[in-house]
Amino acid sequence: MRWIRFTPADGLTRYGQLHDTTVLEVQGDPFQGFALTNQRHALAEVRLEIPVVPVTFYAAGLNYAAHVKEGATLMDRAPVIPTQADIGYRANNALIAHGDDVIIPADAGEKIHYEGEVVVVIGRKARNLNEDEALSCVFGYTIGNDVSERDWQKQDRTFWRSKNSDTFKPMGPWIETDFNLEAATTIVRLNGQEQHRFATHDMIFGVRHFISRMSRYLTLWPGDVIWMGTDGTSPNLRSGDVVEVEITGLGKLRNRFIRASA
Amino acid sequence: MRWIRFTPADGLTRYGQLHDTTVLEVQGDPFQGFALTNQRHALAEVRLEIPVVPVTFYAAGLNYAAHVKEGATLMDRAPVIPTQADIGYRANNALIAHGDDVIIPADAGEKIHYEGEVVVVIGRKARNLNEDEALSCVFGYTIGNDVSERDWQKQDRTFWRSKNSDTFKPMGPWIETDFNLEAATTIVRLNGQEQHRFATHDMIFGVRHFISRMSRYLTLWPGDVIWMGTDGTSPNLRSGDVVEVEITGLGKLRNRFIRASA
Repeated sequence: MRWIRFTPADGLTRYGQLHDTTVLEVQGDPFQGFALTNQRHALAEVRLEIPVVPVTFYAAGLNYAAHVKEGATLMDRAPVIPTQADIGYRANNALIAHGDDVIIPADAGEKIHYEGEVVVVIGRKARNLNEDEALSCVFGYTIGNDVSERDWQKQDRTFWRSKNSDTFKPMGPWIETDFNLEAATTIVRLNGQEQHRFATHDMIFGVRHFISRMSRYLTLWPGDVIWMGTDGTSPNLRSGDVVEVEITGLGKLRNRFIRASA
Repeated sequence: MRWIRFTPADGLTRYGQLHDTTVLEVQGDPFQGFALTNQRHALAEVRLEIPVVPVTFYAAGLNYAAHVKEGATLMDRAPVIPTQADIGYRANNALIAHGDDVIIPADAGEKIHYEGEVVVVIGRKARNLNEDEALSCVFGYTIGNDVSERDWQKQDRTFWRSKNSDTFKPMGPWIETDFNLEAATTIVRLNGQEQHRFATHDMIFGVRHFISRMSRYLTLWPGDVIWMGTDGTSPNLRSGDVVEVEITGLGKLRNRFIRASA
């Protein structure tokens, strides 16, 4: 099942189930409860929104070995492979939907990079799950692009500008509840040309481990999202570039990058 | 005006205006719009909730010179006074209200510390404010206690357990819209004994500067909160301790600390 959050012509954002290119509108939402309505919309005629406004926006950060190594080289640092699953955070202000433009701030440097990531969407309140139970709180999966400004990333103590400037976190296009992470491939394309391809599951710490470890200390809530990290490194993106993150079985998240004028 | 978020006997959480010890219930909320109702409640008969569920939960972190110096000593590091206002993040899962217990995880170390902080509550959408305009987006102020586990703080790459374990972020008791930050004093009491007293405004980077700098890169939204940091350092807290953070003109935020059994 694909769940989308969308806005039709009346301007009121709501949830729906996507069947091929038809949206079956629901009342409510898949987290707190919903009822199907008789309203139908053509996918092409609605605006896609981010599929969920996170309660807490978690991000694994460094979670694929090749990315840690290549990233460290880029940042003039020695690679440090994480020895424990320390979850991090991103900020809701930065989220944009599939099809929205990433706006590169006028004073940003040249090292604007993409990171194509699978995103776990939590569906029920959970605490103290072991690894066998961990996936029981997962509602579904979507796609994220963890856009970064690497010069700021060296300077910012907290990654606030480098990772969380407005529009730096595209997420979507929808939530897929029937997804086989073990079988999935992440493919990143720049202006239609394939740049990277990696096994989505090839993480340092997997989804089960992160959820189990996180839930020892914190409560996961319906609507929380966990971005699981990326592999490889990005070329420097320029104004007009279009980045597409495909995860097989999930969909494609596509956004254009535009540099703001000074 | 004092705004509280509260739950009466019917279990439905709502907003109200507090006049002395009487709560004037409103429909809606002070961020999206509200209307006064005829419902009145005695403050003593309702449960206080956190005064706002943040859209994004910002925290200044190191923002008072003495805290940076004493904290560095405690962490076996050289003190580094921040040279730019880099805003950080905390997580919504950790928030609890005035009067709720902070639960120290069973496997936490002995260095459980408080940090009494003034909290800015954003009232309107804002972008690109200069310092003169910055306070125009502020709705009011509340109090926060940025509880930390210092051994984990050394180990956790992202401060997730050390700062954001469930219950580690008491916030409240209400939002005060008429508050003179320049005249305020922050006083922290442990089991009724005064431990610290500092001028609330004695920050490395003030509220105007943080909001102006943040808003160059990000949109502030109604309901965002910015925790402004603390001065001094805390003794190690033990199970049963009660910490009260008073900010003159704002109120008192009081919470008991209880260690979970293994």
